[in-house]
Amino acid sequence: MNINTLTIVGVGLIGGSIALAARQRGLVRRVLGVDRNQATLDEALALGIIDEGFLNPLPAARRSVLMVFCTPVDAIAAQVLAVADACSPGTLLTDAGSTKAAIVRQLEDRLPAYVTFIGSHPLAGSEKRGPRFADAHLFSNRVTVLTPTPATDPAALVRLQGFWQGLGSRVRIMPAEEHDRALALTSHLPHLVASALCGVLPPALRELAATGFRDTTRIAAGDPSIWTGIFTQNRDALLAALPLLVEQLQAYRHALLADDRTAVDALLTQAKRTRDALGN
Amino acid sequence: MNINTLTIVGVGLIGGSIALAARQRGLVRRVLGVDRNQATLDEALALGIIDEGFLNPLPAARRSVLMVFCTPVDAIAAQVLAVADACSPGTLLTDAGSTKAAIVRQLEDRLPAYVTFIGSHPLAGSEKRGPRFADAHLFSNRVTVLTPTPATDPAALVRLQGFWQGLGSRVRIMPAEEHDRALALTSHLPHLVASALCGVLPPALRELAATGFRDTTRIAAGDPSIWTGIFTQNRDALLAALPLLVEQLQAYRHALLADDRTAVDALLTQAKRTRDALGN
Repeated sequence: MNINTLTIVGVGLIGGSIALAARQRGLVRRVLGVDRNQATLDEALALGIIDEGFLNPLPAARRSVLMVFCTPVDAIAAQVLAVADACSPGTLLTDAGSTKAAIVRQLEDRLPAYVTFIGSHPLAGSEKRGPRFADAHLFSNRVTVLTPTPATDPAALVRLQGFWQGLGSRVRIMPAEEHDRALALTSHLPHLVASALCGVLPPALRELAATGFRDTTRIAAGDPSIWTGIFTQNRDALLAALPLLVEQLQAYRHALLADDRTAVDALLTQAKRTRDALGN
Repeated sequence: MNINTLTIVGVGLIGGSIALAARQRGLVRRVLGVDRNQATLDEALALGIIDEGFLNPLPAARRSVLMVFCTPVDAIAAQVLAVADACSPGTLLTDAGSTKAAIVRQLEDRLPAYVTFIGSHPLAGSEKRGPRFADAHLFSNRVTVLTPTPATDPAALVRLQGFWQGLGSRVRIMPAEEHDRALALTSHLPHLVASALCGVLPPALRELAATGFRDTTRIAAGDPSIWTGIFTQNRDALLAALPLLVEQLQAYRHALLADDRTAVDALLTQAKRTRDALGN
């Protein structure tokens, strides 16, 4: 895939990393950055992440072959709708949001026929923010999920798959709803649990919170407004995931109440097996 | 503190790190290692962690000024009792176990008058195992909790405090029961939760578990038999901690059920504040 002009909307850690990776791998000729924050654009320009910065997305949209929206999940659909009419025919629009069904649903049947939107979610990131944390290798060997609908143009899907693979990513294709149910378990529930653990730590005990607590709660340092958007957009799947965790907690509770070492050991052994299978 | 002969019982990651740190900081002349596994002793000898290895603790006990038991929490008290009679007068015995009350209770009034046991818990470690992961800097700037009883010889407590400070650690002194209640929240509950999260991940979704899931569940890779001992020894405090977490989970659940973005944001913001206060 050889892209003349790529536009990144939201030049933070994810958007900046996409720009850097696309540049360093020679996939794009020119990268335009759109952000509501001029200081972020200036920083991204200074870091060589983008070639030009825009506060207004329309002039960037007119010149782009591909636009990637790396903004909060609850802003993406409206931003896509706002630029769609300004796009050149054949422009491919995608995003990097952690939820997919609500976005895909809001855009279905509402875009001009000459542009295509396909949802993307690169499973990579960090609790950090801003273009200075951008990393050209962020997507290497990570999975990116694409969520086409039955109406999606197959040629556009192949182009988008080629783009993410070009950034070093492995691509998985599934319906948006399936993505959201899966990510509720693999990402949103862990974020909720990490945050809940922080909620039970009294300030007086912070000094006694060592590596274990820090690892387990690291993601709770993520931006609350971004995660509020993710939680509320994926509310149903997250609410369905929560009882599965509570059931597990009850299993530990019952094993402890019964002082049943064998049962505790069996639970921990099964958990270790799963964790070991994930690698570092 | 200048120690002629230090004995480490259980030459794994923690025991090996104590030995290395004590050597490199010039606190000890000679380090003896006791382990039930000859291969571990050979590895520790080859790595320069210990000077001599013993399968039987008694000959090492006879020659030691300080013995540190770095074995599973449910083995420590019996191991201390087994060597106490063989120790020279004035020998200081301690441990590195993650629970304290049960160990301290089992040893109270059961040791000869000429030896002293004081519980220690260095808040440092990893899910890894074995002397090859020993790290002379493991305790630098980490907290070590000491849990004397009203009967503890104050001079011995000062000696032990000097030892851990000599390894680079900051020392906090508190009753064993207070330690156990605190660690139930800062360490044992996170371990339980990380393991419970692994329990809800179906094998088919492993591929979609990215950095967030991996960080949050990293400690679940810890040795199940060690953690079964910790959980059962600190059963009461852990069972008391669990409802605090469930209460937090319910707060998220209610906020989501009500589709109350402000409430979700407030919970996540409070959690982030706590996590940010811990540092990396």
